[in-house]
Formats: sequence, C-alpha cells, structure tokens
Amino acid sequence: MTTSPTRFFASDNASGVHPEVMAAIERANTGHALAYGHDSWTEAAESAFRHHFGPDTDVYMVFGGTGANVVALAPLVSSFQSILCADSSHLWRDECAAPEHFLGAKLVPVPSHDGKIAVDGLRRIRPIPAAHHAQPRVLSIAQPTELGTVYTLAELSALTEYARERGWLVHIDGARLANAAVSLGLPLGAFGPEAGVAALSFGGTKNGLLGAEAVLFFHPATRSSAPYYRKQAAQLASKMRFLAAQFTALLGDALWQRTAAHANRMAQKLADAIAPLDGVDIAHPVETNAVFVHMPEDVASAVQQEMYFHVWDPEGTLVRLMTSWDTQPQDVERFARALESALARATR
Amino acid sequence: MTTSPTRFFASDNASGVHPEVMAAIERANTGHALAYGHDSWTEAAESAFRHHFGPDTDVYMVFGGTGANVVALAPLVSSFQSILCADSSHLWRDECAAPEHFLGAKLVPVPSHDGKIAVDGLRRIRPIPAAHHAQPRVLSIAQPTELGTVYTLAELSALTEYARERGWLVHIDGARLANAAVSLGLPLGAFGPEAGVAALSFGGTKNGLLGAEAVLFFHPATRSSAPYYRKQAAQLASKMRFLAAQFTALLGDALWQRTAAHANRMAQKLADAIAPLDGVDIAHPVETNAVFVHMPEDVASAVQQEMYFHVWDPEGTLVRLMTSWDTQPQDVERFARALESALARATR
Amino acid sequence: MTTSPTRFFASDNASGVHPEVMAAIERANTGHALAYGHDSWTEAAESAFRHHFGPDTDVYMVFGGTGANVVALAPLVSSFQSILCADSSHLWRDECAAPEHFLGAKLVPVPSHDGKIAVDGLRRIRPIPAAHHAQPRVLSIAQPTELGTVYTLAELSALTEYARERGWLVHIDGARLANAAVSLGLPLGAFGPEAGVAALSFGGTKNGLLGAEAVLFFHPATRSSAPYYRKQAAQLASKMRFLAAQFTALLGDALWQRTAAHANRMAQKLADAIAPLDGVDIAHPVETNAVFVHMPEDVASAVQQEMYFHVWDPEGTLVRLMTSWDTQPQDVERFARALESALARATR
Amino acid sequence: MTTSPTRFFASDNASGVHPEVMAAIERANTGHALAYGHDSWTEAAESAFRHHFGPDTDVYMVFGGTGANVVALAPLVSSFQSILCADSSHLWRDECAAPEHFLGAKLVPVPSHDGKIAVDGLRRIRPIPAAHHAQPRVLSIAQPTELGTVYTLAELSALTEYARERGWLVHIDGARLANAAVSLGLPLGAFGPEAGVAALSFGGTKNGLLGAEAVLFFHPATRSSAPYYRKQAAQLASKMRFLAAQFTALLGDALWQRTAAHANRMAQKLADAIAPLDGVDIAHPVETNAVFVHMPEDVASAVQQEMYFHVWDPEGTLVRLMTSWDTQPQDVERFARALESALARATR
Repeated sequence: MTTSPTRFFASDNASGVHPEVMAAIERANTGHALAYGHDSWTEAAESAFRHHFGPDTDVYMVFGGTGANVVALAPLVSSFQSILCADSSHLWRDECAAPEHFLGAKLVPVPSHDGKIAVDGLRRIRPIPAAHHAQPRVLSIAQPTELGTVYTLAELSALTEYARERGWLVHIDGARLANAAVSLGLPLGAFGPEAGVAALSFGGTKNGLLGAEAVLFFHPATRSSAPYYRKQAAQLASKMRFLAAQFTALLGDALWQRTAAHANRMAQKLADAIAPLDGVDIAHPVETNAVFVHMPEDVASAVQQEMYFHVWDPEGTLVRLMTSWDTQPQDVERFARALESALARATR
Repeated sequence: MTTSPTRFFASDNASGVHPEVMAAIERANTGHALAYGHDSWTEAAESAFRHHFGPDTDVYMVFGGTGANVVALAPLVSSFQSILCADSSHLWRDECAAPEHFLGAKLVPVPSHDGKIAVDGLRRIRPIPAAHHAQPRVLSIAQPTELGTVYTLAELSALTEYARERGWLVHIDGARLANAAVSLGLPLGAFGPEAGVAALSFGGTKNGLLGAEAVLFFHPATRSSAPYYRKQAAQLASKMRFLAAQFTALLGDALWQRTAAHANRMAQKLADAIAPLDGVDIAHPVETNAVFVHMPEDVASAVQQEMYFHVWDPEGTLVRLMTSWDTQPQDVERFARALESALARATR
Repeated sequence: MTTSPTRFFASDNASGVHPEVMAAIERANTGHALAYGHDSWTEAAESAFRHHFGPDTDVYMVFGGTGANVVALAPLVSSFQSILCADSSHLWRDECAAPEHFLGAKLVPVPSHDGKIAVDGLRRIRPIPAAHHAQPRVLSIAQPTELGTVYTLAELSALTEYARERGWLVHIDGARLANAAVSLGLPLGAFGPEAGVAALSFGGTKNGLLGAEAVLFFHPATRSSAPYYRKQAAQLASKMRFLAAQFTALLGDALWQRTAAHANRMAQKLADAIAPLDGVDIAHPVETNAVFVHMPEDVASAVQQEMYFHVWDPEGTLVRLMTSWDTQPQDVERFARALESALARATR
Repeated sequence: MTTSPTRFFASDNASGVHPEVMAAIERANTGHALAYGHDSWTEAAESAFRHHFGPDTDVYMVFGGTGANVVALAPLVSSFQSILCADSSHLWRDECAAPEHFLGAKLVPVPSHDGKIAVDGLRRIRPIPAAHHAQPRVLSIAQPTELGTVYTLAELSALTEYARERGWLVHIDGARLANAAVSLGLPLGAFGPEAGVAALSFGGTKNGLLGAEAVLFFHPATRSSAPYYRKQAAQLASKMRFLAAQFTALLGDALWQRTAAHANRMAQKLADAIAPLDGVDIAHPVETNAVFVHMPEDVASAVQQEMYFHVWDPEGTLVRLMTSWDTQPQDVERFARALESALARATR
C-alpha cells in the first residue's frame, strides 16, 4: 500500500524537484568536472540564460534567494548609498538584514499598495546630495511582488524611467519571475536590459528546482567585481554542474513556462473556488501563484489542520495560499471543501 | 559505445554525487515538506549528527564551506575580536575575505608547518588587553589541514588546552573531517565537545554529497543567535530536506567512513606509486586524500594535459593531487605512468 | 574699528565655544598627560557625569554625534537585530547609513508626529520570531527630537515600558539633551537608568563645546565590549584631556543648564516674535531651541541673505531656525524685522 | 608657588597643544560659522595643504588617526580586495580591526625589518586572480614607521613602483609625516602625488595639535565617494573651523617643521645620552622622535616611576621613548640620570 504524497499550500518551496530537473541532475552525475563553474554544464546554462536575456548577459548561479539579492546588489552600490524597495518586499522584511549587513548600506522602504510601489511613492523620497545622507543608488523591484501581484510593462517602465532620470540603477528581485512573465504573456527577456534593468535575481527553487538561483547582470561594469562578491557572499558552489544542470532543464524546452503557467492556473482556480464563499475575502489581485485571503481566525486554524498554509498577518487573519508546479486540481478542490465546511461549522 | 567517465586529481569536489546519496535525494523527492528545515528529513539528519557528536549538538546545515565557516564563527566572536588561524589555511587564504567581511573582525595568520600550527606559534601572539588591539577570541584549526595533514589528538589537545587557558573558543574547519577521522582511526565525535571544540564546520560536499555542509555547535550560548546568522549569511536553504537527506545517507551506514577511507587509500597508493620516481618529491606527509608533490614545471604541464590537477605554488612547482571517493586504482596507475613517461621525456 | 561677530540661525553647531569651556581647555593645556583617557581630567569628567547620572554610569567620551550613536548602539545589538527609530530622526535620515554600516544591522523607521513616535507606532511593528526577520532589539528615542519637540516623562515612560515588556533595550539620542531637560524642568539624570534607559548619547558640541560628545551606559554588560567598540569606531581620542575638560566645565556650575535655558528662551522669543506675522506658520511646538516655520519660498530666500538658516523641506518651504547659547535678543529682533520686511515686500 | 608641568616619554600624544595652535583656536572662536566645513577657516586650511601638496589635493580633515586611515582607504578598496601593510604597522596591530570592520576587506601583514617592508617582502605575496582570493589593491606604508624609522626616497620609490606595476594604489600613513620629512630634509609634498601616492593620512595631533588629522587624496576618482565615507566613518566634525584653524597654524610659518625638528633633535639627544650606558641597547635606528631601547626589566620599572614611558614588548624588555615638540633638554638629562642610577642600582 502506498500513501499518496502530501501536498498543501504553504509555499511553492514546499514542493519538491520537478522530474525533468531531477533527471538532469542525474545525467550530470558522471565522472569529474572542474569545480566552481569551470565545466561544460555551467557553459550550457549560461548559454541558456543568454538565449533568453541577450548575448551580453553575465550569469552567476548561486545557492539561494537572499544570496542572489546580495550578490546582485553588491556591484551596484557603495556602502554610503541606499537601495529603495517596497515596504512589503522580501528584501526589506524577510532577509534578516542580510542586505544591510553584506552591503553595509541603507535600505529605504517605500510605501506600497498590493505589494507594488509607484512613482508617487518614489517622489516622496527627496534625496539631499550632502554627506549626511545615504544617497539613493538602486531601485529594487520585485516581479512578481511578495503579494503575488505583477507590475505591467507600463508600470515597470514608469519606475525604471524615473530611476534612469536620477541616475539610479534598477534591480529586479525575480525569485518567481517565471510566474510574472507567464502572467503577462511575456518572454523572460522582457525583464532584462531592454527594460532598463541592471541586475536580476532569477529564481529557480520556487519553480521546481532542487535549489538554485541565478544573478544576471546586464551592466558590464559589474564584471570586475561580481565574481568576487559571489565568493565573498558564500554563494560560489563547488559542484556547480548540479546547479547548472537544473537551470538548463528549466530554461530549455519551456519547462519554466509550463511549471509557472500551471502554478498560476491552480492559483486562479483556487481563488475562483473560494472567492464566492461567505466570510472569505480575496485580499490582493491574484495574478501569479499566490492567493491572499482574509478569513476568520478559527476557520483558518481548522483548515490548516487539513492542508497547511501560512498566516501572513494575524490581524484580520490574512492568510497566504501558494500553489506550485505540482499542485493538483484535486488539491484545490479538497482545500475548497475543507474551507467551506470550516466556515459552515464556524457560523453555526 | 559509451565513453568511460573522466576522472582526474584536481579536487575531491570535482567528483560527483555518491550513488547512495543520489538515491537518498530521490527518495526525499516526494510531496510537500515545509521549507527551511521544518520537516522530518531535517529531523533525521540532526539525529544522525547527534548520534555521532552527542545529544547537545546543535545542527545548522548550510550550502557551502565558506558559508559554514562564517556561520560557525559568527556566534563566537564580536567585531572587535580576532580569530587565529594557520597562515596556510583556507580561512586565511581562500575565502575572499568573507570572514573579515561577514564578521567585521580580524583574522590573524599564525605560522604553520606542513599546514599545522603549534603552541609555539600561538605563544608569539601576545595579546594586549587594551582597546587598540583586536582581542583574540577564537582559535580556528583545520582538521585535516589545507595541506592534507592531520593533527594527532595530542597535538589537538595541546592547542585546545592553550586556548582554554586563555578563554579562547575553538573552531574546527572540518571540510574534510571524515578523512582525518579515518586517518586517525577515530570516530567523528572525537572532534566534538569532548575535544574542547565550541563549533565545527562539517564537510559533506568533498566527501560525495551533491552540495551540503553543516555547522555543529557544542556551546548552548550560540542557540539564540545561530539561526539568525545562518539566514543573514544567506545559508538557509528553503528545500532543506534535500540537504538533510544527503547527510542522513552520509552519516548512516558508515558511508562517510567508507568514502573517506577509500579516498585516503587512493592517496596513499598514489604517493607510493610516484614517490620513488626521480625528479619527484613528496612535499608534505600524506595523511588523508591529498598528495603534495614537487615536480619539474614542464613535467607538471605535460601530465596536466592527460589528467588535470592544480599547481599549488608556481615556485618550485608544487602541485596538489586530490583523490576522492570515486578515484579508481586504474586512475592512480594511469597517472603514475603518465608522470613516469613525462619525467623520462623531460630528462632526455 | 572692529566688526561685531556674525550670528545667524543655521544651527547651534554654527556657534563657537563658550568662554568657560575655552578657559577649561586652556587650563588643561599644561605638561604631559597619558593619552586615551588615562589622565586626571578624564577622571574628573567621569565623576561629573556620575554625579548627574548615578555612580554606576560608564562614560565614554567621543568625537561627534554619529560616533556617539554607533558606539552607544554597538554593545546593545547583534547584526541580526534591528533598531527602531523615528522616521524623522537623525539616526534614520542624517547619518549616511553609519549605523547600518558599523552595526551591520537593520534600522526600522517608525512613523512619527512632531518628531515623536508613540506606542501606537510601535504596535504596528509586529516582530516575527523567525530567522527570516531581523529581530527588534533597541528602541532609539531622540530627546529632544530632530524637530525640537520633547517627550514628556509620561510619553517617555510609555515607550520604555513598552520596550521593557518586549525585552528591548532603550537608547536615547541626546545630542541636545540639556535643552530637553531644561524644557521639562528636570535634572539630566531623569534620562538615565531610572528612566529605563540602557545607553545615552549625551551631546556637548551643540551646547557650547568645541567638539565632544559622550556615550553613557547604564548596563554593566556593555563594559566588556564598549571600550573596544569606541576604538573600532575611530572615536577614541588620544588627547582625551581636552574632551574631558570641556565636559567638566559643562557639567559643573550648571553651565549646561544656563546655556540650554538661554537657547530655549531665545527660541521662544523668536517664535513669539514671528508667529503673529501673516504668511508665517509655526510648524511644530517650540519646546527647545528649534523653531520650524513655514514661509513663502521667496521670503525665505530673502531673509537667508541677511541671516542664514536652513530650508528643511523645499515642499511648502519649511525652514528651521536654531538658537544657541550665544544667540542675542538683538539677533532675534533683527531676524523678526528682516522677516517682516521680506513678507511686506512679497505681498506687494 | 607653581609646580612645573610634568613631562615624560610616553608618547608625543601625551604632550599638549602648541601655544601657536591654541592661539589659532582662540582666534577662530568668534561668531557663527556654518558647520561641517562650509566656512572660511576650512578654506584656508585646504589652501595651506594645497600649497604643500599641489593644487589637485583633496582635503578631508578628520578627528583621529584610525579615522584618517579608514577614510583614506575606503575610496580605494572594495570589500573583496586586500591591503598590504607591515606586520609591525599601526594599521595591522593598533586599530582594533577598524580597517577590516569599516572596509569589510582583508588586511595582509607583510614581514618588516626595523618597521619597514621591502620589495622582497611584497614579492612573497603572490596574488592569484581567482574569486577565492582577496585581491591586493592597496599598499599601505607608514612614513615614519611605527618604530620611528624612515623610508628613504629610494626605498619608497622602489615600493611605489612595484605597486604601480601591479595596478595597486599606495596609501601613506603619515601620522608623524612631519617628523619623517624633517628627518629626510624633504618638503611635505615629497610624499604626495609625485611620489606615486594616492592617499595620505596626515597627522597633526602628535605634532602639537589639540586633535586633528587630515586625509589627502591625489586621485580625482575618490571625489565622488570620500565626503560620504568621512561622514559614514563618523569623522565629519560639525565645528570644523576648530580643526581647520589648527592645521592652518601648523602648516603656515613652518610650525610643522619647527616642532618636528625639535622632537627629532630631542630623540637624537636622548639616544646619544643613553646609548653608551652598559645594559642599554638601542633597538632600531633613531631617525625621528622615537627611541626604542632594550633594558633590564627592573631598570625599566624603576625609571618608569620617575618618568613614564611604555614597555613595547615585555620579552627582552623593549621600551619605547617618544619625544615631542615640548620635550626639554633637561627632560632628556633627567631621564639619562635616572636610567644611569637605576642601572647602577641594578648591577649592585
């Protein structure tokens, strides 16, 4: 007798490794390869990235998302400068001060709505070019945002244009970039140099990889420092081929697109299933693979017992439901039924 | 027709993943698991470590060796303190100032012989307890050393005793600890709390893992900060189960011992095969899986073409030959033949 | 013919050295004294501080205000922790990321009104005790605030009580503490240990010194690290006696009180003189030696020509007028006349 | 009855403020001046520096010597780079890891003889241009050295030439530069751009100032960052005029030369007086205002009671005797007599 595998809505990083990715890892496990990226798997992954983002893309694969962000930012800022980011962003809230610590620089939170910042919010930052003030240097935008919403190309270009006019560089935290690209029906390359982006944290782990992220630079001045910052940030893998093989699998044959599209569809299906329920409120537009929902606290607790998810904010009981490449329609249905019955029990 | 896999002597991290480890990764790839270590695989790996190192061992799995070292040191030192380490150590030479950068503290190189420091070298450090001077706080010892040599228990205890008397804490950089333990015929736990060690960087990647290291603390005061330092150092894996599964495989069923013993034997065989050759000089005692050899420069170049290895120091042409869990006797023989014939050609 | 010395309202640090302070410096200029504070002048200054703040006060004199703040905070926080401070504070806005850089930690801005934060603002910070989040550790309060307002003892104790309940430590940035104490009719010691304060940056430069600030700790655990952090922050003066002599002069014979009271009175006089003018709006309560005023932009420019001051915010033309220990009633009158006539010219 | 002022040989920073400097401070104490260097005294001091070091010299006055060094180095290095300095230097030994902490970079100690490093020592540093290794970027040379010795122009140019060939920048730690210049009969400007120097820490405090050092840059690329690094390093004085006035006094009318020449002469006189004594050994060439002497431990202790000085190294009892601008011939004679009689008592 086999038990069927557990699945829930805690996070897309609660899911495992996509079979095509696992197969790629296994294929890479043959003989010796020089460490630290001096191998043909790394070359192939870099080519795959350049296929999507253009021939001048510099690729630095790293271990994790926080590592990707600090490596992406290090060549762009000096310690006396600041990085502007949404007050709801992962960079600001969820990285245990790693950016401040590694960069020795200032993070400045910008008010956001549905996870997104707008030019209006940036206007309130009035930099004073005097030694007393950390000078704005990088605008860091998450695409999609921490709340699963997506900047349209127009919104994005308004922001990057505002940055460009001020001589600021733009970083995109794309831990789930594939989900945003699919949501907008755009190629990955839409978030590269042509969008005025200097550095991109490209996520893989949340989209079916075992564990790999990449930093892409579209700014040749970073070339003399980025390799060293990756090492100094403890993000240089010795057995690089196993990170590379994952990315080659993800970027080739549109796996990134298939997985992200599936996760997004499941989120939509989930939102559709629960939105009509009384006592449930969708909190933010569902544009990728996250569904943020308000629900009564006891209802949330009851449903968590059956299919785990995270409470995002105890106040007003905002919960986050994440779908993944392996979420099944029956998972959505089971969740909706569990929620419906918890709501029914609660209102009795 | 299949080509046999390439193998050479560049490094033990040039080898791939041990089949038992790969199988463990695959078994872990089922359903969802909470991220960041809140899963049963992590629990099992932690148990496995505690089995070897004692029930009070705190386990923090991380991505890589430099990451392990900074996470291990962070709870032990303040920025105004210093870490003493061998002038030939990885910590001093090969981490791109990551320790200085992450800890904001001072590294002080101690003269070493065959990679090892001795109490005499420490005596030359005469700390002055005044605010002008970074105060020694941690003695970091690599076991085995960067040159493949091993501290005997007596040597180790002379050092830790010297440290203890001064109120210094001891860190062991055990990126290849298994090789040292096997070499000394000791259990892994011999390098834990009973040896007066506060923190241990325990290596896995160089001993057949895909990519995973662990920081072990034997000092309860680290508990309130270590989880945060791991995250801040960008070493907290989201899909932790895949790191954990590797360690459970390595630590159970004596895999660590089998792989390390094999690598050590291959190094011994290699040393035995080439030591008698004219023009070749073994530079340091061969005690684990490294063979350091002086050879003529043109000979080194010629042999590198056939089986790659690293030149360690261009002066006097010191080269490093590393064996691994997958080194085969025929690899050793092929190398010895290649070297012999290059030497013959060179002396003509 | 002698020209009378220029005075304006740019800042209290635009004024010079109080004659009693200068005399003390001169008296200290005799023979040799051991450097770095091992001298009798330092002892006397420390005694003077202990007279005001209690016998268990640890005193570290430093060069400047930013230096005082980083030295005060260093023994209180680890890099994975955060410091909460007003979004209008000097710490957040005016220190060129020195706190983030030196501490490697996170600053979190808290919304403020009239420069002051309140418990309500702190409640919105909902710390999550997980490794992803920098953990709140210090609440830093400026007394008076960057906008010249003063926390009442009740307001202060509400904040420190809130902090105490959460295990946070309290730091006061008292770059102008004397002005606040005088404003509230309280002794300096009211802002020490009995107020639940762990560390205090005590300002001197803005109150008539040539250049000296002090960090006071009321928390014995800081003793083992603070001397080193002062040195590492490049705040350890070699000729310490000349800093010490300034503080002995300031703290003895109530000089701090006389100078601060005078400056506060001048600010009140200035506010009284200009508040009735049409087109002028006092922006924040005038409680110490700062007067924040809205006035038309061209009026501000015209008056600046005659008596310089800083525009605080170009939007709505908010200007800051600072009085000092040496501000004279005729300076206030001259300013008021200049403003009145600029307003008259502007409305024509 | 007046007691004559105490003087001893502990350090040149144990002496007070030169009367001409004190007079300059007093003259600057008139009316208001804009803070942070926007004043005419600062302008005058900058002119005085440019008179000595050339019109393209950028001047940043700071509080102290450690502050000067970190501000001087910050615009020159990135965190993944290293700074080479003598193993006997102040930078390496006496700054409580402030350079490592502020720069986040690596210091590499180079073996030295009589305090001086030589090209031979640099040759042993064989940088490997790979991401694992902090890349040498700055050669920091103390002139005079921590041991009071002086690099000849030929020695200096051998070092700077070696650095130039490798693309390294040169920093001079000139905390006592005046003493070296006088010793060599050279103008201050000999240690500026024409000597291939990028940044200079110029000392004042040890040469009769109350407390002021300056960082001089001869490298225009530093201009965009240096003002911010000075602030971030907490080295931006608000009442800058009082630092500036000191430097104007020191640099004008050859005061720097008169004071340094006097101190050097006194050191020579001291060495001459004690060198012939049995049991006393001059340890390093006496080239500026330091005399390093070996003497029996009990003799050192006895003489310290009468005229204090520092024991430099308890082993072999190496002591340091520093003369200053205010050392008097009778101080030297008194010391020599005290030493002679202590030696006599010891040998009985």
